[in-house]
Parts: sequence; C-alpha cells; structure tokens
Amino acid sequence: MKVMIIGAAGMVGRKLTTALVGTETLAGRVISRLDLVDVIAPETPDASGIEVTATAADISDPAVAAKLIENRPDMIFHLAAIVSGEAELDFEKGYAINLDGTRYLFEAIRHASTEEPYCPRFVFTSSIAVFGAPFPDRIGDEFFQTPRTSYGTQKAIGELLLSDYSRRGFLDGVGIRLPTICIRPGKPNKAASGFFSSILREPLVGQEAVLPVDADVRHWHASPRAAVGFLLHAAELDTAELGARRNLNMPGLSATVAEQIEALRRVAGDKAVSLIRHEPDPMITEIVSGWARDFDASRAIALGFKAETSFDEIIRIHIDDELGGHLPD
Amino acid sequence: MKVMIIGAAGMVGRKLTTALVGTETLAGRVISRLDLVDVIAPETPDASGIEVTATAADISDPAVAAKLIENRPDMIFHLAAIVSGEAELDFEKGYAINLDGTRYLFEAIRHASTEEPYCPRFVFTSSIAVFGAPFPDRIGDEFFQTPRTSYGTQKAIGELLLSDYSRRGFLDGVGIRLPTICIRPGKPNKAASGFFSSILREPLVGQEAVLPVDADVRHWHASPRAAVGFLLHAAELDTAELGARRNLNMPGLSATVAEQIEALRRVAGDKAVSLIRHEPDPMITEIVSGWARDFDASRAIALGFKAETSFDEIIRIHIDDELGGHLPD
Repeated sequence: MKVMIIGAAGMVGRKLTTALVGTETLAGRVISRLDLVDVIAPETPDASGIEVTATAADISDPAVAAKLIENRPDMIFHLAAIVSGEAELDFEKGYAINLDGTRYLFEAIRHASTEEPYCPRFVFTSSIAVFGAPFPDRIGDEFFQTPRTSYGTQKAIGELLLSDYSRRGFLDGVGIRLPTICIRPGKPNKAASGFFSSILREPLVGQEAVLPVDADVRHWHASPRAAVGFLLHAAELDTAELGARRNLNMPGLSATVAEQIEALRRVAGDKAVSLIRHEPDPMITEIVSGWARDFDASRAIALGFKAETSFDEIIRIHIDDELGGHLPD
Repeated sequence: MKVMIIGAAGMVGRKLTTALVGTETLAGRVISRLDLVDVIAPETPDASGIEVTATAADISDPAVAAKLIENRPDMIFHLAAIVSGEAELDFEKGYAINLDGTRYLFEAIRHASTEEPYCPRFVFTSSIAVFGAPFPDRIGDEFFQTPRTSYGTQKAIGELLLSDYSRRGFLDGVGIRLPTICIRPGKPNKAASGFFSSILREPLVGQEAVLPVDADVRHWHASPRAAVGFLLHAAELDTAELGARRNLNMPGLSATVAEQIEALRRVAGDKAVSLIRHEPDPMITEIVSGWARDFDASRAIALGFKAETSFDEIIRIHIDDELGGHLPD
C-alpha cells in the first residue's frame, strides 16, 4: 500500500508518520511507500522496510496536485491547512490553500480516475469550526454548518466537495471533524485556544501558565494520540457504512477548565495547580464564548472512533508520549 | 437604485423583471437602472423611467464578473444556474457555472469593495437540494446540509461563500432556498419534478397529463408569484435580523399529489381531473423518494417571507397570471 500524508510536517502529521512507520501496515496491508508532503519538506523517519519520500510543495499551485499523485497513492491523508487565525487575517491565502488547494487535489484524482481505475481512500481533517454559535448544549450529528470564520467556511466547503467526489466514485472520502487537540506538545503559542493546553503542559514541568478565561468555560477536547487514532480508523473503516454522509463529528471529551484543573491536581498535585495564574482576557473570553462546548458524536462512536473519557487520561497520555512516562523530579 | 438580475432570461428572472418594471421601486428607492444578464441576452421590457440593459454573458469566464459589476449595482439578484439534471450529467459545466461563476461574482465584488466603499445587497437563489435523504418528516431550520447531487453541493458551497463574504463586509448577502416552483408555466419538460406542474397545468387547458408516481407522494411547493415575492422580500429585509445565518429555507406548501388533484377538482371540476393518466414510472418514483417532503420554515416566516397555504390558491394564481384570469371555455 502506498500512503501519502499532505501536511506531514505538522504536529499531527508527524505523529501519524511515526505511527505508520511503527506498524508498517494499514488497513491490513503492508505499507510499501510513504510520501510525506508539506510546505516545507517534512523530516524523514527511519523506516527500513518502507520507501519514504519527503517533498516540499505548495498545494495552492494548480500544477502541483497532479505531480503529487503521480505514483497513485492508495491512501491520502490531507491534513494541510492554513490555521484559523491566519486564514482570518489573510483572506486570500486561506482560500488559496484551504479551498483551492484541496479542490486541486480532488480534481487531480478525478482526472487520474478517468484515465485508469483509481479511487484512493481520502481522509480529510475538518474541524468543529464548521459550526457557529448559537449552539445547542450538545451539538448532534445533524446540526447545520454555519461557520463564523473563513477557516470554518473553507473546511465546510472541503467536506461538501469530499462528499460529492465520493458519491461520483472519484475517490473514497472520509472527513473527520477534530476536537481541539489537548495537550498540544511544544511551546505556548498565540492561538486563542492555546491556554487549554498550556494550563496543563507548563505546570506539569514546573512552569507558570496563564488562564485567560473563567474556570466554568466548557470546551471539546481530544488528545494528539486520539487524533492519530481517528485518522487510522478513518483509513481503515468500511465506507459502505457511511452511506452518502461522509463527514463525521469525532468523539471527544467535554470538560470545563475547572475539570481540567482538578484532573491536573489529581495527577500532579496542588503545587502544579498553584502555577496557574488567572488573568482574565476579555478578547479571548469573547472568542471562546463562540466555540462549541459539547457534542453528541453518536454516529462516529457507533462507527468505532474512540476518544478519551477523562482529563486524567489526557494528562497521562501527555506524560507518556511527551515526558518519557513520568513527571520531572 | 441600480439593480442587476443575473439569470434574467429564466422563468423566475422574467417574472422578477416584470415586477420591478411594474413597481419602479425597490426597498423604498426608485430604480434608475436595471441590468439584465443571462447566457443569452434577456428580452428587454418596456420601461420608460428605467435605463434597462440586456447582456449575454458567461459567468464561468473569470474576466466577466468584474465587467458585469462595473456600474456598481446596489442590488444583485443571482438566479443563474445549471439546473440539477444537467449539473449531474456534466460535472465540469455544473462546477464551472454554479461554483466558479458564483465565486467570481463574489470575488469581483470583494475587489471592488477594497477600491471604494461598495457593499451591494446580494440575493442568491439556493435550493432545497442542499439537503439529502434520509430526512425527518419536517426539515427544521437547523438541519444539516448533505446534498446528494452535484447541483445541491454547488448551491451549498455558494451559501457558505455568501455567508463568509457577508461576514467580512464585502457584500450583504441573503440566500433563499426555493421550494419546487408549481405551477411552472410553459411546456412539459423532462425534469423529474415536471409532473408536479403538468398534472395541473395541462388539465386546466383541457389537455392530458401523465402522473408517474403514486398519489401519496408528498412534496414542497410554492408558486412563481411566491418565488418573486421571496426575492423582493430578500432584497428589502433588514439583514441585521439575520445575524450570521444568511441562508434561509423559504416557506412553502407541503402537499401530496392527491391533495393537488383534489384542489384541481375544486377549481376546475371532475373533467379536468379525468385528464390525468396514472402511468407509474419506477425511475421517477425512485428519484422523487429522495426529495424533501416538508419543512418547518419558522425562521423565514418570522422574517416576513410568505407562501401559499393551499393548492387551490396555487392553481388560482396560475389561472390569474398565465391564463388571463379564467379557464378556457
């Protein structure tokens, strides 16, 4: 099986790469080739049995997609995107990458499929940003798409194209709407959602973190490990079970900031919790108030997608995967 | 006020033109200019006080949109589309007109609005084809968009772009999802939905009509007069009331074929009804079984959109508007 990851240099892309190189199989087939693509060439992992390539490519260039799929990958993970904040600041860049770039990939596959039998599985990472407030307390599987950002708009359009190209038989698409990934490894960043991770990640290693919202703020989370699990399951599931509805809300954990903090206390003690400094930020509070708080992801759960069920588990996964299995002394 | 109708040569476009030329005002302002655009040059109506232009233009040509809006219309009605059946048969043509053509218009307006203050009202005719079976008995205002045709996909994407361009302040969009228009004037056509009109239209003038489905089939209707009313109301309403949700299910009348036939009997008698010949067509029956049957269009109704409440009324409107006010002797 030939596998391609577009957006392989990102956090989830790197973890997915590591997982595939580790198992060397996907959907019961041996991985013979792994093409890693991103706007900068992704790092190439050690993988004795797999031919690995790393390519720097700008998917907003109309000529690129046909070249990318020249080797006819059987499985394409499309994770590449201009993130929410940047797509909001740079209207044209967001549409160029998130809409046109995605559509060029679909079109290249369609053209290939008219030349020879070709219908790759195409796993598309979408986002809960396809939904916009006001929300019901729990968003169900049939709630309408009314994004309130250009990023969410572009993802919702990608989903619609994915469905139509799948229905037409050009590709075999699965769109997965990821929860906010928590705990995101790495340095603090300026994303409005960054504090959900940093209020846990920094105290776990003895550093201070700022909480810019009230503790009763509720949000929708899944770990990086769960995100990789979603991608692998989307690659392996029987799409006949999806019918015409190719886009799915992934399961996750709905939790308040207070619940996150209590989980931190149970795992790392009062001292860790004392490193969280509450500095209300009206702008971040306002942004976050427009975000989804909870989902009833029944359909994805019935299809076998799995997420964490407690923040203790999410914190322990971070300790296992990022801190070598234990808190620093 | 400068008004543009794109898709002015179609049935609804012609009726909208007639209405505007009749009132000479829109949203309380005098219409000074009316630009009629279609793939073939629309007929120019007599209109003494209004400067009327008729232009043949292919909106799938990227250079066309900027030219069309050179005079900065204050009000744009975008009705142009490749219809459902053709968009399904010709994948590329459907996307070229319904997606790219619509996006080029939005982009031309955005570019214009960055040069000078410009934010036209943009009324976009969408369709209940943005929804796909399985449906609830009544589709509510927050039901998700899962089109099962390329046409429905293209309309759903147009809606998303309309919302995002409105949110960004490039234009002031209102998307209206029209019910099936009944009674469509003119000759019988091969559209799968054609019989909903022809089983009334033909018997009203003493001609036979074929009913290809069972009489218990339920569907969602509004008259051509109601459709023009929706467009005018969308042009005039205060979009502050819409908030971020710019796309609306229009009100309509949910009726079974049997209810249509009983209305025909009340208005035109048993003899008219006897002209309907039941010839079940499995293909049409199958297609129609995937269509929406009923909507709870509360939001549009609260915003002042109005449709018919009985098929007697729909038939009488046809008699008034198409048959000179009375049945032929």
